[in-house]
Amino acid sequence: MTQPAIGDAFGEMIRDAYAVHIGVGPRPLAGGRYPRPVIEVIERDDGLINGALAGHYLSEPADWRPFDHRAMSLCRGRALDIGVGAGRTAVELQRRGVAVTGLDTSAGAIEVARKRGLRDTVLNTVDEFSRASVRYDTFLLLGNNLGLIEGPERAPLFLAALARLANPGALIVAQGTDPYGTTDPVQVAYHEGNRARGRLGGQLRLRLRYREIASDWFDYLNCSVAELESLVAGTSWRLKSIDDRDHPYYLAVMEFTG
Amino acid sequence: MTQPAIGDAFGEMIRDAYAVHIGVGPRPLAGGRYPRPVIEVIERDDGLINGALAGHYLSEPADWRPFDHRAMSLCRGRALDIGVGAGRTAVELQRRGVAVTGLDTSAGAIEVARKRGLRDTVLNTVDEFSRASVRYDTFLLLGNNLGLIEGPERAPLFLAALARLANPGALIVAQGTDPYGTTDPVQVAYHEGNRARGRLGGQLRLRLRYREIASDWFDYLNCSVAELESLVAGTSWRLKSIDDRDHPYYLAVMEFTG
Repeated sequence: MTQPAIGDAFGEMIRDAYAVHIGVGPRPLAGGRYPRPVIEVIERDDGLINGALAGHYLSEPADWRPFDHRAMSLCRGRALDIGVGAGRTAVELQRRGVAVTGLDTSAGAIEVARKRGLRDTVLNTVDEFSRASVRYDTFLLLGNNLGLIEGPERAPLFLAALARLANPGALIVAQGTDPYGTTDPVQVAYHEGNRARGRLGGQLRLRLRYREIASDWFDYLNCSVAELESLVAGTSWRLKSIDDRDHPYYLAVMEFTG
Repeated sequence: MTQPAIGDAFGEMIRDAYAVHIGVGPRPLAGGRYPRPVIEVIERDDGLINGALAGHYLSEPADWRPFDHRAMSLCRGRALDIGVGAGRTAVELQRRGVAVTGLDTSAGAIEVARKRGLRDTVLNTVDEFSRASVRYDTFLLLGNNLGLIEGPERAPLFLAALARLANPGALIVAQGTDPYGTTDPVQVAYHEGNRARGRLGGQLRLRLRYREIASDWFDYLNCSVAELESLVAGTSWRLKSIDDRDHPYYLAVMEFTG
């Protein structure tokens, strides 16, 4: 099999999902005739593949999960929404009067977030952007984006980049998932295989695929609260609170101590 | 990346789709908590990947496309529904009093078709089953299953197998798709690449992936009516009629002349 081309798979998907959402512009069709749902395909390095409806990246607050609403209410001051995607949460924060910047590495996602009215956007990595002179009071990692801390190697670097962008007392509000409650043999075997290779059990190795394009492979971390605690130890952040009312999903608040 | 295990990917998917459909039994969940839609992932040998909602394999007549209804009305006598899947069309034919047998190579699909009430099912290939002593008056290749003729090498063998099962005057009612109307560069390049390798343009090389399981790679043919005509030439079948009112989809009726 030919390997797919590497590109902005996420952005291409978000562009199509947005076209379907607003009903304007070229939309994916089956046989040039019937609407084709926009589906995000996520491939894992053990061969597991999952599909998800891309429309959830454009969902309205009424359709959000409860922890998303609680995350909103933890936001204060100037906010940086990291992995802003189509602006699902950032557009709502802006509507509520929050000074919010949306950051993403996907050009297609930033394009759609801007079309949806998000005024302040940054197409960049956290590391590059952390050299800028702006400062924030809240960093948002929603939509499971605590995963962006990747794992033990990357987490201190990621948290250091946020520290460079942090006002005194700044907060990280991150939504994560504890992966270890499952008894699914496929997941249990994956966690064990990861540990055997010196990785955290839920340190997922993923790539996105959309139509003819794939992302590069990347790490994305689902971790327990105990694991998060050890990743945060020794950084200029401290774990301030955990809201796990919707277990296995949780909201972690980290406070800047630097 | 580890390659996925080879197995009954279609059947696993149909089992899950059925559990979701009836709301009984273990259903796929995200994080063990929220329902996860059952999605069929179809990978093509050029790296293209598509997702589709598996629920359409369980759709009720009210949700069918118009050509499916017209196909039903072409059915006469004893019918063999080839690639019966979850029994979408066969269960409806049985309800209408047609003596219908559902054939599939997927154990999971046959299991679900039986649970949905389809009484006469065969878990087998067309080739093996064609050694049986039963005879049919109509062979159904619906849900785009004209694709099962695969291409120039396989088509005469497939049609010969159906001939062995055919009563005098038997019909094949097949739904196909003409792939050549597109201007999508990905599709046009695929058709050209196929032709350069001596294949028909729309001779797709596919595999299904569902969760940790993949099917083997297989050929599946989307062809024009002219291509179909040349594939049927020299067999004991003749192309009797084409209904292309829903172009690029069409219904082809072939008549047994042997």
